[in-house]
Amino acid sequence: MSMRIRILVTGGTFDKEYDELTGRLFFKDTHLPEMLRRGRCLLDVTTETIMMVDSLDLDDEGRQRIVDRARDCGERNIVITHGTDTMVRTARAIATAAIAGKTIVLTGAMIPYAFGSSDGLFNLGSAVSFAQVLPSGVYVAMNGQHFRWDGVRKNVTSGCFEAI
Amino acid sequence: MSMRIRILVTGGTFDKEYDELTGRLFFKDTHLPEMLRRGRCLLDVTTETIMMVDSLDLDDEGRQRIVDRARDCGERNIVITHGTDTMVRTARAIATAAIAGKTIVLTGAMIPYAFGSSDGLFNLGSAVSFAQVLPSGVYVAMNGQHFRWDGVRKNVTSGCFEAI
Amino acid sequence: MSMRIRILVTGGTFDKEYDELTGRLFFKDTHLPEMLRRGRCLLDVTTETIMMVDSLDLDDEGRQRIVDRARDCGERNIVITHGTDTMVRTARAIATAAIAGKTIVLTGAMIPYAFGSSDGLFNLGSAVSFAQVLPSGVYVAMNGQHFRWDGVRKNVTSGCFEAI
Amino acid sequence: MSMRIRILVTGGTFDKEYDELTGRLFFKDTHLPEMLRRGRCLLDVTTETIMMVDSLDLDDEGRQRIVDRARDCGERNIVITHGTDTMVRTARAIATAAIAGKTIVLTGAMIPYAFGSSDGLFNLGSAVSFAQVLPSGVYVAMNGQHFRWDGVRKNVTSGCFEAI
Repeated sequence: MSMRIRILVTGGTFDKEYDELTGRLFFKDTHLPEMLRRGRCLLDVTTETIMMVDSLDLDDEGRQRIVDRARDCGERNIVITHGTDTMVRTARAIATAAIAGKTIVLTGAMIPYAFGSSDGLFNLGSAVSFAQVLPSGVYVAMNGQHFRWDGVRKNVTSGCFEAI
Repeated sequence: MSMRIRILVTGGTFDKEYDELTGRLFFKDTHLPEMLRRGRCLLDVTTETIMMVDSLDLDDEGRQRIVDRARDCGERNIVITHGTDTMVRTARAIATAAIAGKTIVLTGAMIPYAFGSSDGLFNLGSAVSFAQVLPSGVYVAMNGQHFRWDGVRKNVTSGCFEAI
Repeated sequence: MSMRIRILVTGGTFDKEYDELTGRLFFKDTHLPEMLRRGRCLLDVTTETIMMVDSLDLDDEGRQRIVDRARDCGERNIVITHGTDTMVRTARAIATAAIAGKTIVLTGAMIPYAFGSSDGLFNLGSAVSFAQVLPSGVYVAMNGQHFRWDGVRKNVTSGCFEAI
Repeated sequence: MSMRIRILVTGGTFDKEYDELTGRLFFKDTHLPEMLRRGRCLLDVTTETIMMVDSLDLDDEGRQRIVDRARDCGERNIVITHGTDTMVRTARAIATAAIAGKTIVLTGAMIPYAFGSSDGLFNLGSAVSFAQVLPSGVYVAMNGQHFRWDGVRKNVTSGCFEAI
């Protein structure tokens, strides 16, 4: 039987779009439903947009709302899409909340999905897979790998996540 | 530390291309290296092309070559890209060979990667993730899900894989 | 003031799609409206689908319907999307009908628009432009060039159109 | 015989790329050669990069360099890729230079070519076509239309070019 998964959307590069009038990047709607359709994903997924922000703009109050939803939603298998810049910090906040019995996987993208060459679809396929089979805990899934929340950092020079 | 994974390429829709002179689909080189780059995959992956065939054209001898490589290669975590039509049959052949201590995940695509709207990148992200964390055994990873080789079939009406 | 143009759709590689259940190419709806939106085309364009066929399957009766619509429609500036294999033959049929005072430009694609790497958008931009400014007559617009109907052939080895 | 065309590249949205480390848009190399290949363009085209700038950053000195190259290059049929914000201003500068016997067509894009949904390929197909057949003069080719340099403005609300 297909597993129930909740995807909590918080924005990040994943969901950025190009505003052709201003030449700037902005957020409109999440691309998650379209991405799941394209992946022909048949999991029992509920997608919920908590916010649409650049993770550099995410403050403590916003971070707390993510923690709250991860704790309070009914599913025990959760994927959170998040900007890469503060993904590890949010992972730590969730871990600190000591949510029992849930597998929570944060993922993101280096290139917006709306741009042709995005890594987002690969990362989403990876994150929903790890979320189904990893033991309960808080993880980051990037670059085809998974890391425990306290064993990872973003290398700001390479843009990649690495074990610490 | 990053895990060593071998990807065995056998063709399938995944790697089909459009021949603009004949209007037919054909195989040239595998897109796996490009897909792994796009996914910024940092796993220690070795990609090996065994064959490039439509899985409907795969005979017993060809299927045996896939089994042999899965058994004989040094890695214990293996992804096999494969046409969807006979993916389950190849999974069974591998399982019958009773390869001990290896996690082997077959995946494919419904739309060629070279066409814009392919599910291939999602499936690849999913397969390399399952291949890292599932216990040893032979699996099919499609539609965001994983199935044991003896618990899955392709629904030829919907094009999706389902548990049996 | 923006010029009135009619686009007559006849199918061809331009509009082919991939059937993920059969692995074959087929026709569904034309992509012309989507392509014009993507090109932010502000011409006064009416798109009319006459048929959706591979031009190798186009018989005399079908070819006559194209001639009839080109002659009978109200616009004097016309683009016809057409398979490349018999594009020149249809151009000749239209020219033979001696339609006075109309500029008629046939174009097509070597790669379906639905596949990422299509030449279709380039050819469409080219064809609608030539259709606005060339003197009345019947032309083929391919490879960034335009040819009179009696001065062009498709080179079946290269897939390109060349002057004769 | 195929016509000789020179494409002068000046940057603009056409050629912007996404910097995945900073999340900002930037210029690297022009995409023009790749776009011409994709359009299977068989014109005798020489592509020359004069500069790679956002047209809002283009000063008088830079604009003069564009005028100089348009006047001094050997070709009489010229396409200039240019940011849309000051495209009309550059067209006026070129027209003021009173270059005799040349057809000069400026074009651009609202969405970078590197992003999947760009109008750039349509505009390029349009511009190279107009450049071949319009009488000598300075033109803007956008939105499938062509305008004389002194009969067009960019509507900053809609992002489209319109006759004045």
